[in-house]
Amino acid sequence: MEVKLLTYTPEPDRVVATAARLCYAPQDAETVWAGFTREKQEEFLGRLSAYGHFSPYEHVSFTFAVAGVSRALSHQLVRHRIASYSQRSQRYINEVSFGVVLPPTVEADPAAREEFERVIAAIREGYQRLTALGVPKEDARYLLPNACQTQLIMTMNARSLLHFMALRCCRRAQWEIRELAWRVRAEALKVAPLLFREAGPPCLVRGECPEGTMSCGRPYTKAEVEASYGLA
Amino acid sequence: MEVKLLTYTPEPDRVVATAARLCYAPQDAETVWAGFTREKQEEFLGRLSAYGHFSPYEHVSFTFAVAGVSRALSHQLVRHRIASYSQRSQRYINEVSFGVVLPPTVEADPAAREEFERVIAAIREGYQRLTALGVPKEDARYLLPNACQTQLIMTMNARSLLHFMALRCCRRAQWEIRELAWRVRAEALKVAPLLFREAGPPCLVRGECPEGTMSCGRPYTKAEVEASYGLA
Amino acid sequence: MEVKLLTYTPEPDRVVATAARLCYAPQDAETVWAGFTREKQEEFLGRLSAYGHFSPYEHVSFTFAVAGVSRALSHQLVRHRIASYSQRSQRYINEVSFGVVLPPTVEADPAAREEFERVIAAIREGYQRLTALGVPKEDARYLLPNACQTQLIMTMNARSLLHFMALRCCRRAQWEIRELAWRVRAEALKVAPLLFREAGPPCLVRGECPEGTMSCGRPYTKAEVEASYGLA
Amino acid sequence: MEVKLLTYTPEPDRVVATAARLCYAPQDAETVWAGFTREKQEEFLGRLSAYGHFSPYEHVSFTFAVAGVSRALSHQLVRHRIASYSQRSQRYINEVSFGVVLPPTVEADPAAREEFERVIAAIREGYQRLTALGVPKEDARYLLPNACQTQLIMTMNARSLLHFMALRCCRRAQWEIRELAWRVRAEALKVAPLLFREAGPPCLVRGECPEGTMSCGRPYTKAEVEASYGLA
Repeated sequence: MEVKLLTYTPEPDRVVATAARLCYAPQDAETVWAGFTREKQEEFLGRLSAYGHFSPYEHVSFTFAVAGVSRALSHQLVRHRIASYSQRSQRYINEVSFGVVLPPTVEADPAAREEFERVIAAIREGYQRLTALGVPKEDARYLLPNACQTQLIMTMNARSLLHFMALRCCRRAQWEIRELAWRVRAEALKVAPLLFREAGPPCLVRGECPEGTMSCGRPYTKAEVEASYGLA
Repeated sequence: MEVKLLTYTPEPDRVVATAARLCYAPQDAETVWAGFTREKQEEFLGRLSAYGHFSPYEHVSFTFAVAGVSRALSHQLVRHRIASYSQRSQRYINEVSFGVVLPPTVEADPAAREEFERVIAAIREGYQRLTALGVPKEDARYLLPNACQTQLIMTMNARSLLHFMALRCCRRAQWEIRELAWRVRAEALKVAPLLFREAGPPCLVRGECPEGTMSCGRPYTKAEVEASYGLA
Repeated sequence: MEVKLLTYTPEPDRVVATAARLCYAPQDAETVWAGFTREKQEEFLGRLSAYGHFSPYEHVSFTFAVAGVSRALSHQLVRHRIASYSQRSQRYINEVSFGVVLPPTVEADPAAREEFERVIAAIREGYQRLTALGVPKEDARYLLPNACQTQLIMTMNARSLLHFMALRCCRRAQWEIRELAWRVRAEALKVAPLLFREAGPPCLVRGECPEGTMSCGRPYTKAEVEASYGLA
Repeated sequence: MEVKLLTYTPEPDRVVATAARLCYAPQDAETVWAGFTREKQEEFLGRLSAYGHFSPYEHVSFTFAVAGVSRALSHQLVRHRIASYSQRSQRYINEVSFGVVLPPTVEADPAAREEFERVIAAIREGYQRLTALGVPKEDARYLLPNACQTQLIMTMNARSLLHFMALRCCRRAQWEIRELAWRVRAEALKVAPLLFREAGPPCLVRGECPEGTMSCGRPYTKAEVEASYGLA
């Protein structure tokens, strides 16, 4: 999996602070903007987050290039609707040499792995034969597996990203999209450390789990997150 | 493919006419509602549609149960974001006896069909072996093909449906989702004949194609639509 | 203020339960639907709500006719974006005899009330004179006050309604939109008692306030809600 | 009215071209990005626009600071839901010295202007008296007129902006929001000339009016737009 922050609204922390402050300030936007030192941004965004007032977080967007993920992941991902996606099309691109995402449980078991690879080879061969017989790519792809690699460009605003991370960094999320969510979080934190200070699963952020009796019972710790993703 | 209108906002034509009329009427909502005979609804909704004022169409929603469609279709479908979906989960349901959607181009060619079914059998066997080896369902499904059947419940408001049909009834849309769009149109027309009077591809509705040089050059005719879907 | 539930998706509790169940059930939608007795709906929706899984709540929508509210209220209301509105237009309707919403703090103080009514009379006279001078209605209305009464038709799905009520039933919400939110809640509860069982401010629903140091410190009680709105 | 482009996604033309190209390209996002010379962007975005494929336009957002506009304008503006707003609050800011937007038809007629200003003075006096009597700002503002100036920060992605301009640059749009739309267009064109090349009312962009019998009959010309806004 590759996750790269392709572009984003410049100075995201400052933009959000300015927008939020404008609602209650007699000054104009440029004066508010100019007056926001880093310290004031930190103090002000801290309060905003404590009150749960996240609508100003929508003013900044982050665009990620994601590659080497499965179609199982992308089908889940695009269910997040307050977001924009442009994804590699299986209708128009020849997928004869498609890559696959191998689930860790399969990778860890030699018998499972062998079986997995045998089936993938059969699919690859089938796809090739169908297209050789004149079946259009858009129909031959009906054989392609969920494991098939895809790539996409995704844009979310900071509020939508917070929601995405709260749901998908959770241990109950499916492992591949969880991996994506943590990587997205790490990239976002590098450029907007104040906005994403409290991004992540509720167990890490608020010290409590909203899943009730379905809770996994193993809250994330800062140490684990730092060890795995470099940024807690 | 099965498409069933599960439920919808009652009296959809009247609800939309009332909401639209309220913007310009000195009367209250109940008086406007009561005064809308069928003839007045028809005349008024005709004008609304001619002016392209579709925001009142959002007040009514339609909920469809869709089954026997592929995951290739559902991945495209859920890209329509002004809509709600609840879909059968491959993480939690055992898919050992999954059904498949067979593309017509494959069905029409005996050699292609044989190859297709051979690969599907290999996938089914692989899925079974992986789960027998203890691989979780959510990982074994990485082998499942795009052809794998799914079912879902989808809700869209009438404005979103008009957009969906304009894009997906088009001959350039992928054949399976096009089939869905035409069936959704037929179901919707039965209960909201005024709202969906001009639903469908631009070639049928407005007599022109917006795709420019990518146009298929074969506009739909009322006769063809009536022969295929029973409602033009 | 008048709030009337104009229409809604029939059998809302059952629709949501069916959609949610479909994700994990091997049966088809109609079988799931048919099997949902009232008791099973109650048990199942209780679990769904406890886990915080609200996406199936989007499948049902509720359409309200709202009248006798101010433009101060409607400007706030339409900030809820996952919703549809059709509102009486001040551009096209002659507002010479506009009604007003009188804030309780003004009503309670005779001097304030007199002053308020004096200014409203001056506005009404000014509006009339401007239109008599040939100023278009859409420009004369620049004089109309926030207090000016409006009417609108609003549609929200149940998930969006839950969000609306959580924010706007709160004592920190502005009094007029809070009144609307509680009335909307009462109407919704009558027809979808299971879905809206936990609708309302966090203090009432979860026994805690998310506003931190900005909390009002006076949580709603069931007794107060029942006394004021008839349904707790 | 002041309209300032506060910030935006850097290199917007290139971002959109890259996202759109990725759907059909075997290369990865960075290779596509690197290969997009200005000439190729122009050619490619021209085709995208001709086909009406605007979903990649969502990947770039533009944030405007808008001041000196009326609450009549802002109430209309926030009806555009695929957008984010942070607006000066009349609940929390003392508006005793509020500014007003004077409609041109009122400004042009001395009698109307005098009447308008007389009423505004009465409102200002009333607001001051109510607050002096202890009425909270959030209630005293029920007297404030639609003409009352407000300021806000607005963010829209390029697709939503195209829609906004198509509707609101139209001569049938209300004059104040039309002025805003043209200014927003001028600002956007400066930094994303390829994306907004065909932004504006349908009469200017496509040479035809979709309003049917409600058409104003006076299509915009490039000469008029250039004379008024400096960028055609």
